[in-house]
Amino acid sequence: MSFNTFGRLFRFTTWGESHGPALGATVDGVPPGVPLDEAYIQRFLNRRRPGTSKHTTQRREPDQVRILSGVFEGVTTGTSIQLMIENTDQRSKDYGDIATSFRPGHADITYHLKYGVRDYRGGGRSSARETAARVAAGAVAQAVLGALVPQLRITGYMVQMGEMRLDRARLDLSAVDSNPFFLPDAEAVEAWSDYLDGIRKDQNSVGAALEVCVQGCPPGLGAPVYAKLDTDLAAAMMSINAVKAVEIGEGMASAALTGVANADEIRMGEAGPEYLSNHAGGILGGISTGQDIVVRFAIKPTSSITTPRRSINARGEEIEVITKGRHDPCVGIRAVPVAEAMAACVILDHLLMDRAQTGGVRGKIGNGQFG
Amino acid sequence: MSFNTFGRLFRFTTWGESHGPALGATVDGVPPGVPLDEAYIQRFLNRRRPGTSKHTTQRREPDQVRILSGVFEGVTTGTSIQLMIENTDQRSKDYGDIATSFRPGHADITYHLKYGVRDYRGGGRSSARETAARVAAGAVAQAVLGALVPQLRITGYMVQMGEMRLDRARLDLSAVDSNPFFLPDAEAVEAWSDYLDGIRKDQNSVGAALEVCVQGCPPGLGAPVYAKLDTDLAAAMMSINAVKAVEIGEGMASAALTGVANADEIRMGEAGPEYLSNHAGGILGGISTGQDIVVRFAIKPTSSITTPRRSINARGEEIEVITKGRHDPCVGIRAVPVAEAMAACVILDHLLMDRAQTGGVRGKIGNGQFG
Amino acid sequence: MSFNTFGRLFRFTTWGESHGPALGATVDGVPPGVPLDEAYIQRFLNRRRPGTSKHTTQRREPDQVRILSGVFEGVTTGTSIQLMIENTDQRSKDYGDIATSFRPGHADITYHLKYGVRDYRGGGRSSARETAARVAAGAVAQAVLGALVPQLRITGYMVQMGEMRLDRARLDLSAVDSNPFFLPDAEAVEAWSDYLDGIRKDQNSVGAALEVCVQGCPPGLGAPVYAKLDTDLAAAMMSINAVKAVEIGEGMASAALTGVANADEIRMGEAGPEYLSNHAGGILGGISTGQDIVVRFAIKPTSSITTPRRSINARGEEIEVITKGRHDPCVGIRAVPVAEAMAACVILDHLLMDRAQTGGVRGKIGNGQFG
Amino acid sequence: MSFNTFGRLFRFTTWGESHGPALGATVDGVPPGVPLDEAYIQRFLNRRRPGTSKHTTQRREPDQVRILSGVFEGVTTGTSIQLMIENTDQRSKDYGDIATSFRPGHADITYHLKYGVRDYRGGGRSSARETAARVAAGAVAQAVLGALVPQLRITGYMVQMGEMRLDRARLDLSAVDSNPFFLPDAEAVEAWSDYLDGIRKDQNSVGAALEVCVQGCPPGLGAPVYAKLDTDLAAAMMSINAVKAVEIGEGMASAALTGVANADEIRMGEAGPEYLSNHAGGILGGISTGQDIVVRFAIKPTSSITTPRRSINARGEEIEVITKGRHDPCVGIRAVPVAEAMAACVILDHLLMDRAQTGGVRGKIGNGQFG
Repeated sequence: MSFNTFGRLFRFTTWGESHGPALGATVDGVPPGVPLDEAYIQRFLNRRRPGTSKHTTQRREPDQVRILSGVFEGVTTGTSIQLMIENTDQRSKDYGDIATSFRPGHADITYHLKYGVRDYRGGGRSSARETAARVAAGAVAQAVLGALVPQLRITGYMVQMGEMRLDRARLDLSAVDSNPFFLPDAEAVEAWSDYLDGIRKDQNSVGAALEVCVQGCPPGLGAPVYAKLDTDLAAAMMSINAVKAVEIGEGMASAALTGVANADEIRMGEAGPEYLSNHAGGILGGISTGQDIVVRFAIKPTSSITTPRRSINARGEEIEVITKGRHDPCVGIRAVPVAEAMAACVILDHLLMDRAQTGGVRGKIGNGQFG
Repeated sequence: MSFNTFGRLFRFTTWGESHGPALGATVDGVPPGVPLDEAYIQRFLNRRRPGTSKHTTQRREPDQVRILSGVFEGVTTGTSIQLMIENTDQRSKDYGDIATSFRPGHADITYHLKYGVRDYRGGGRSSARETAARVAAGAVAQAVLGALVPQLRITGYMVQMGEMRLDRARLDLSAVDSNPFFLPDAEAVEAWSDYLDGIRKDQNSVGAALEVCVQGCPPGLGAPVYAKLDTDLAAAMMSINAVKAVEIGEGMASAALTGVANADEIRMGEAGPEYLSNHAGGILGGISTGQDIVVRFAIKPTSSITTPRRSINARGEEIEVITKGRHDPCVGIRAVPVAEAMAACVILDHLLMDRAQTGGVRGKIGNGQFG
Repeated sequence: MSFNTFGRLFRFTTWGESHGPALGATVDGVPPGVPLDEAYIQRFLNRRRPGTSKHTTQRREPDQVRILSGVFEGVTTGTSIQLMIENTDQRSKDYGDIATSFRPGHADITYHLKYGVRDYRGGGRSSARETAARVAAGAVAQAVLGALVPQLRITGYMVQMGEMRLDRARLDLSAVDSNPFFLPDAEAVEAWSDYLDGIRKDQNSVGAALEVCVQGCPPGLGAPVYAKLDTDLAAAMMSINAVKAVEIGEGMASAALTGVANADEIRMGEAGPEYLSNHAGGILGGISTGQDIVVRFAIKPTSSITTPRRSINARGEEIEVITKGRHDPCVGIRAVPVAEAMAACVILDHLLMDRAQTGGVRGKIGNGQFG
Repeated sequence: MSFNTFGRLFRFTTWGESHGPALGATVDGVPPGVPLDEAYIQRFLNRRRPGTSKHTTQRREPDQVRILSGVFEGVTTGTSIQLMIENTDQRSKDYGDIATSFRPGHADITYHLKYGVRDYRGGGRSSARETAARVAAGAVAQAVLGALVPQLRITGYMVQMGEMRLDRARLDLSAVDSNPFFLPDAEAVEAWSDYLDGIRKDQNSVGAALEVCVQGCPPGLGAPVYAKLDTDLAAAMMSINAVKAVEIGEGMASAALTGVANADEIRMGEAGPEYLSNHAGGILGGISTGQDIVVRFAIKPTSSITTPRRSINARGEEIEVITKGRHDPCVGIRAVPVAEAMAACVILDHLLMDRAQTGGVRGKIGNGQFG
C-alpha cells in the first residue's frame, strides 16, 4: 500500500517526483468562503525555495504554484483544491550515474527493494522536493486558520546545526525571518554561517534540530487516545524527509525529571487558567491546554555528499559512491517552512475534528468558558 | 471527533474507563487460520500487570482476558475479535476528592475543557489502564507475526530512569525478563531498585526512557510518504500515556552528526546487503532495510504524587492538590510491554499493507531476492 | 482485509457471532453530554427482537444490552461506548449438520472459500443476528440526533412482501408500530398475515421491500462527490444482510421519466424554498434539500428453508440441503428497525461532517438562512 | 467535510470543476511494475468523450490526459499517479444567466445552501464532467487488473432509456461497442435513435438504466460486513451523478421471490463449484462467488432542459428557468464507461484487500483450491 495522504478531516495528498513534469498537492476538506489566491500560497513557497542563499542548493526552482480547482472568484468553494508546481530545472544528466547505485543513508536501496523499480532521477519520490507540495498545502491551512483563529501564530526556527546550538537565553522569534538559517538569534548568524561554510568545503554535510512554536492555540484540541494532538504532530514531523526524532515540551529530558519538578502548576487568571511552567509543551492527555505548543525534531545530515562512501549497486557489486549534483549541506534549514506547514495542517485538522464532536463548546471553569 | 482506533489494515479500537465495569479492544483485519487462545494473550497481559513487584502500583488487577468473538475452534476466523478485561479492583472512594480538582501535569483539566464532563474515577479514559487493551491487541498481532514471520523478535527494555542510565556496553537482552525493570543489565538492577525506593519515599515520581528493538524484520515494509514505518512507530509510541519524545536510530543525536559519520555503508553478504553500522535505526526513506529497527522514547514522571502542588478546581478556586491512591512511582516500567505491543501492531499492519501492494515480492539485487 | 466499521466521524464497529458468548458494537465519535442509558437503547432493541409474533423466528433472545464504557452519570463522555449483548439461547445442536454443507443462496460457501474456516453455528458472523449490534449503535445515534435536531423523525416500514404490496394511497405512518409487519396500513395487516402463514406452511420463505422516510432533516447534509448522502445511505442499506437493491426517491423508475416530468419545481415559502414534488427523494447532488428523504430497498427471501435444495459440501460431494432450525419466513420484517438504525447513523455522521466543514452555517436565499 | 476520495487500498481523489483550467485524479495504492502510458488511458477516455454522436452534447472536449507522476520508463512505480485533463472548450458565457438561479432537479440549490458559494459555470464541481477523472482512474485499475487477473472482463451497457427497454433474449455483449448507445442489441439501435431524436426535439430529456457485468472475477473478494463487495459497488454507482438506484442480481425483484425460487443451487464441476442460476448476481454474504457479477442502476433525466420550469433564485425571487447550452438529452449514455471504471476500481480494491488479509489463498473444496 502506498499512502500519500496526510490528515483526517483537513487532508492533502501529494504527488510528483523530483524530476517529473510537475508535483503538487490535492487538498480536501477545506471550509468554504475563505479568501485564497496563488500569491498568498506563493509567499510560503518562497520561504522554502532553494537558491536563496549560498547555504542551500543552487538549483533554480521558481516553484511557481497554480491553483487548478476549488477556488472561485477569490474564495474557497469547499471542493478539492489542486495545487500544481511545474518542475523547470531538471538537469537529469547530473544524476545518470546513480540509476543503479545506492547512496548509503539514502532511500535508494529501500525503494528498490520494495518496489523493484524507482524514478532514480534526483531521488524521485523520495526527494525532499516533495516537501514543496506540503508547504503549498500548509499555506491553505494557514489561510483557513487565519479566518477561524486569527490570534494563532506558528513559528519554526533552528535550534541546532551540528556543533552549533541556540543559546536559549537569547531566543528572539522576531529575528527568524531576517537570516538564511531561520535562527532566532541575529548575533549568532555569522558563526553559524562560517561553520556551515566549513562543512561544505569539507565535502560533508551536517544534521540539525528545529523547533516549532504554536502561539494562541485554543484549549481542547486533540482526540484521545489515538489521534492525540501530540501523536499527530509527531507523525507530521517524522514524515518529513530525514527526520529521526520528535520531542514535545521537555521531550527526551522528561526521562530525567521527577514528578515534583515536572508538574506545571496552575493558577486562575482573568482570561482562564494560567500555568506557572510549560514542561508539557502545551499538551496534556493529548489535548491542548491553551499554552504555547512546542515541538522539536532532529534532521539527519544529507546523505548525498561528495566524499566517497562504500556501497553496492543493483547488480550486487561493491562500489564507492560519490554524489555529485547541487545538494544542501544542511537540509535542515529548508525544513523550517515545511515543519510550519505540517503544524498548520495538524492544528486545523484538530480544530475541524473538535468542531465536529463538541461544536467547539468548552467545559466551564467557574462561570467562564475559556477558549 | 474521538479516535479510539489504531492502525490501517490491522486495526484495533480500545474502549473502557479505569473504573468502569470492563475495558477491552476490538481487533479487526486479522488473517484467518492463526492459532489463538486466551492463555496466549494472558501471558502478554501478565507482563504488564500491576502489583508484581514493590515498584509498581499495589492495585490488584488480575487483568483476565476473555475472547468474545472472532476465534473458533482455536483459530482466528478473519472476523473482528473482541477482547474484554473486567475491572475487579475498583476502589472508587480513593479518588472521590479529585472529582472536581485538576492535578497539575494530568489530563484532568484538558478533558474537562474539551468535553465538559469526564469519568473522574481513577483517571477514567485517560488512565494508563487503557494500555491493558493495547497489550491484548498486541498479543493478537504477535500471534499473526509468529505465523507469517517466525524469525521476528520484538524486545522492549528500559534505558533510563531519572538519574539512572543503562551502560550500553553492558546491554544484554537476555536479562530483560528476569527483573522488574525490564532492564537489559542484571547487575544494575539493585542500584535501580534502591534509587526508585528513594523516589517513592520522597513522595515523588520519576521519568524514564525505553527502547524497543525489532530483530528479523524483513526489508521493504513502510509506505512513503505519510505512512512511513518510522512515522507510524512514532505515532504508536507517542500515543502511549505520558510519552513526550520518540527517537529512531540516532534520534536527536542526528542533529550533531556529519554526513560522513552518519552514512551506514553497505557491503554485499550472502544473505543480502550488509550494513557496517545502523545510525538509521533500520529505516531509510520510511522503509525497513532489514537491519534491527531501534525505537526509543521518553515517559514523563507520574503526575499523581503525594507531594502537594498548586492548582485550581472546576469552580475556578485555587487549591493545593495531593493525589492519594496507589500510583506507580515510575509509570515507565509498565510501559515496556505496551511499547512492544504497539510495535507488533505497526509491523504487522505494514506487513499486510506491503502484501496488498507488492504481493511481498522484493526487488532484485544481483540475481537474488532478499527478504 | 476485514472491515467491521461503519461511518466516518460517527463510527461503530460490530463484533460477535450468532452463537458465540456475546456480540456488540463499539461506538466512537459520540458528542459529549448527551443523556443515554441502557433503557433507552433497549427500547430500540425490543422492536427488532425475535419471537414477538408468530411471523418471526421463535428463538428466545432477550437481547439485553449493557453499556460498558463511554457513559458516566447518565451522559455520554465523548469517549468510545461499548455496547454488549450476551447470547443466551444458543442451541448449537440444531445446526450441527451444516458444519460442512453449503446452503444455496447463503454466505456459507463464500466465507469458506475466502477464509478457509468459519463459525458455522447459526451462520456465525454472517448471521442476521449481527444486526442487533447495529440497532444498539443506531440508538446512540438517535439519542444524539434527539439532542441536536429535535424535529428529525426516522420511520421505517414495509412496502412489499412477496405478492403483497402497500397501497400508496392508504400510507399512514401512524399505523407502523401497531402491527407485527411495520405496515403503514392497518387494514391490510390481516391479508399480509394470512399470506405469510401460507408461505411458512409451504416450507418456503419470501422477500420484501422496505422504505425509510427521514422527516425534518436539515438541508446541506452530504459530502460530494464520494460521500454523498445518497451514496452513504445506499451503502448503509446494502450492507444489511440479504439486501439486493437500494432506491432513492423515484429509484429505478427514474429510467422511464423525462426531464420535464422529473423536475421538482421550486417556490419560495416563508420557511424557505418549497418544492412542488419530491422525485429526488430529498437529495440533489448528494446533498439534502430539506424535503423528506426517501430510501427504499429490497431484501431477498431467507435462504434457510426446509424445502430440499441441491448443493455441495466442503468435501466436494453433491448433496441435498434442508435447513432445520427456527428461521424467519420473511427476514425483511425485522430489518425495519435495522434500516432505521442505519439511517440514523448516516444522518448523524453527515451532520457532524457538515459541522466540521461549514460550522453548520447555510448559504442565504434572499435575506434568510434556512436550515 | 468534503470527501473527494474513493476507495480503501486502491484509492483515487478527483479534483476540478467543469470550467476551471483542468481536472483530474490522484491515484494511490497502485502496485509497482505495471505497464502504463497515456495512450492506454486515452482509449478509455475516448469512449466517454462527448461529441462523438448526435446523441451527446456537442461540446468539443478532446479530454487529453497527461500522466504527471507515478509512472517511470513505462511502468508504475508504486507512488501516487497524477492524471490531468485540461479543459479547452470553456464557453463560460453560455452559462452566465444561471449564476444566481437554481435549476429544478439540479445540485445548484443544495451546493448554494451548503457552501454559500459555488462555481456556477457549467455546474462547477457538480458537473458530470467530473466523471472524466473517474474514467482515467478506472483505466489505471484496468491496467493493474490486466496484470493480476488477465481473464477478468468488465462490460457496461444500456438496458433502458425512457420507454425503450432491452429485450433480454437478444442480449449480445459483442454489439456494445459498435453503436452510440452501448446497446447490446444491434438491431434495436435505430429505434432507440429515433426515440431519442424525438425527446431532443421536444426540448426534453430522458432517464436510463445501465448494467455492468464482471466476468472472470475470482471468488473470495469482499469484506463483510461493512465493505461487502455489493456494498462498495452500490456506493460506487450511487456516487455517479444523477444515479437514483442500484440493484445487484435480482435487485428490487427479490422482494417478490420465494426462497425456493431464489436459491441458486450448486453442483460440483471440474473447475470448482457450478451454480445452476445467478439470482444473487455473483455475490453472497458480500463476497464474490466466482459467477458473473451483475450490477444495474438507474440514472434520472438531465435536469438541464430548454423547456421552462418554475424555480427561485438566490435573491429568493420566483422565476422560470430555461437551461441553454449544449446538454446531453440522455446523460445515461455517457455513464457507461464511467460505471465500468467504478466497477474496475472496486474489484481491484477488493483484490488488494483480500491479498492483504488472506494472501489470496482460498479455502479448499474436496482436495481443490478454486480461484
